[in-house]
Amino acid sequence: MQGQTVDKVPVWLMRQAGRYLPEYNKTRARAGSFMSLCKNPELACEVTLQPINRYGFDAAILFSDILTIPDAMGMELDFVEGHGPKFNNPIGNENDLRRTIQTEIDTKLDYVGSTVKLIRENLNKNTPLIGFAGSPWTLACYVLGGGGTKDDFIQVRKWLYKQPDLLVLLLEKLTEHIISYLTMQIKKGADAVMLFDSWGGLLSYHNFPIYSLHYLEKIINRLNESFPTIPKIVFVKGGGVWLESIVQLACSGIGIDWTVDLKSAKKLAGKDCAIQGNLDPAVLLGDRNFVRKEVKKLLDTLTEEERKNGYIFNLGHGISQHTSPENVSILVDTIREY
Amino acid sequence: MQGQTVDKVPVWLMRQAGRYLPEYNKTRARAGSFMSLCKNPELACEVTLQPINRYGFDAAILFSDILTIPDAMGMELDFVEGHGPKFNNPIGNENDLRRTIQTEIDTKLDYVGSTVKLIRENLNKNTPLIGFAGSPWTLACYVLGGGGTKDDFIQVRKWLYKQPDLLVLLLEKLTEHIISYLTMQIKKGADAVMLFDSWGGLLSYHNFPIYSLHYLEKIINRLNESFPTIPKIVFVKGGGVWLESIVQLACSGIGIDWTVDLKSAKKLAGKDCAIQGNLDPAVLLGDRNFVRKEVKKLLDTLTEEERKNGYIFNLGHGISQHTSPENVSILVDTIREY
Repeated sequence: MQGQTVDKVPVWLMRQAGRYLPEYNKTRARAGSFMSLCKNPELACEVTLQPINRYGFDAAILFSDILTIPDAMGMELDFVEGHGPKFNNPIGNENDLRRTIQTEIDTKLDYVGSTVKLIRENLNKNTPLIGFAGSPWTLACYVLGGGGTKDDFIQVRKWLYKQPDLLVLLLEKLTEHIISYLTMQIKKGADAVMLFDSWGGLLSYHNFPIYSLHYLEKIINRLNESFPTIPKIVFVKGGGVWLESIVQLACSGIGIDWTVDLKSAKKLAGKDCAIQGNLDPAVLLGDRNFVRKEVKKLLDTLTEEERKNGYIFNLGHGISQHTSPENVSILVDTIREY
Repeated sequence: MQGQTVDKVPVWLMRQAGRYLPEYNKTRARAGSFMSLCKNPELACEVTLQPINRYGFDAAILFSDILTIPDAMGMELDFVEGHGPKFNNPIGNENDLRRTIQTEIDTKLDYVGSTVKLIRENLNKNTPLIGFAGSPWTLACYVLGGGGTKDDFIQVRKWLYKQPDLLVLLLEKLTEHIISYLTMQIKKGADAVMLFDSWGGLLSYHNFPIYSLHYLEKIINRLNESFPTIPKIVFVKGGGVWLESIVQLACSGIGIDWTVDLKSAKKLAGKDCAIQGNLDPAVLLGDRNFVRKEVKKLLDTLTEEERKNGYIFNLGHGISQHTSPENVSILVDTIREY
């Protein structure tokens, strides 16, 4: 991941420890709720390792959620079955927002540090562990939008045109939290970190650089000062239109969704920056022959040299809970045998 | 809209006859449900004209829904308050799908023809009336996805990787329905037509040309044969990454969402193809000063020559129901005074 030439294409999948795996569902049932699972280092470590044990992925990713930071800021994250994330203390007005911005996190995310440490102790030492955080803009979407994604988070973009100063205060505070959070993950043993800007694609052409990219850059640069050798990956879902500016970030890898041409993305990124992703997660819902065909088609897009110089196989978004575990085996085998 | 040079930038808004207008809400209450409003030519004509009377927009757009075609195919469209579109006869299996594909529409959409005729008779003769339809891919998303948009319609993309032949059968049938439907609208008095590919942006880089663009092209070409002088506009939401291929369509206008740079889009489209849209609908939720500032900023993006050679002011998506009607006045005034 650090610009070295590799012999085979490495592979891992976003949300690889997830509901498509029967062993995950068993552990989750033991934990009770999704958040109890996140907050229990032993169980979170267990589910992180499950897909590694089953498929031999080339990287493990910390089992957690991007919303642990707003949770620690006092919003109290909850997952309602079939409804996704919800906060018990949502932002109802400007006062709520100002209070949330001022709330310090202190030691509230220590459980994530313990999880990272435990995973690193139990994971095969040749398999890198990826830590992660949501981007400031994406966290702001949930903080201000209450959780729902209806109407492309239009209520969040409303803040941007009504009280941009307040939104900027929030983004700056989130940026500081994220830097501390990722610093802690690295210190506890994360070998690489990834920033998820899952809702970056909702911003306008002129606002993406101001309200998202700027903060991604701040985080990457600060982490580069403290941890120059730790790889940093940035993934902006729906960011294909802005790829030229995203690849300017001083990071080691760029995630892309399935709307982007892998070949052009790899060219833009150059030799020193890896491209990660691109397979439509829906492929894994198809028949096994389609899985083979589509995985090969994606690998065929690149020349051997391009594949060896920084391509990480992944999906263009998290794996669907409706995926059959067998299809994931086929995906991994197809890449290994390629 | 037909490649002529104009003195002022024309403006209309997607979903301009909608819930942000008190007079619309009154008429809708009289109609009972959203679908009763769509199916009542007098009331549908009334709401179509409301925003023209209030703001003097430069175009009227037929009040209807993109899902009238699946409704006519026997799926029975219903709108559940707060839940969006639902079909009373959803596609549960392959047999349902085959039956739906075979269902002929016959005269079931005649009510839309009556509405178009009535609007054309009552609308100021200098104001063009835009007819419309959903694109084949976008209609397929709803037909196969049951209505919900959860997980980016992943269940629809599943068909694509599991039974592409069946999906193609559906897309071909929808294409024929759409051509007949738009032909009828033009014959009844529509002065221009627009195709909404609201979910085109969900397709992968390699699949967009195969499963969406191809059918858009078929429709445009067939309409160009029958009605060469009628302007045709295509809007692919989330299609910014593929703009170079979209502008190759033989149409008179291309709609763009707010993620795209207006200037580059106008350059790509050239003199003979208008660009329409681009303002983030969330701007209209901001303070009036922001509305003025953002509208001016958008107009400033283009040179006077570019503005005169085919730019139609519009939003990058439908207007939000939470918009204050006063902000729409400010938008229109800012454009007029520019």
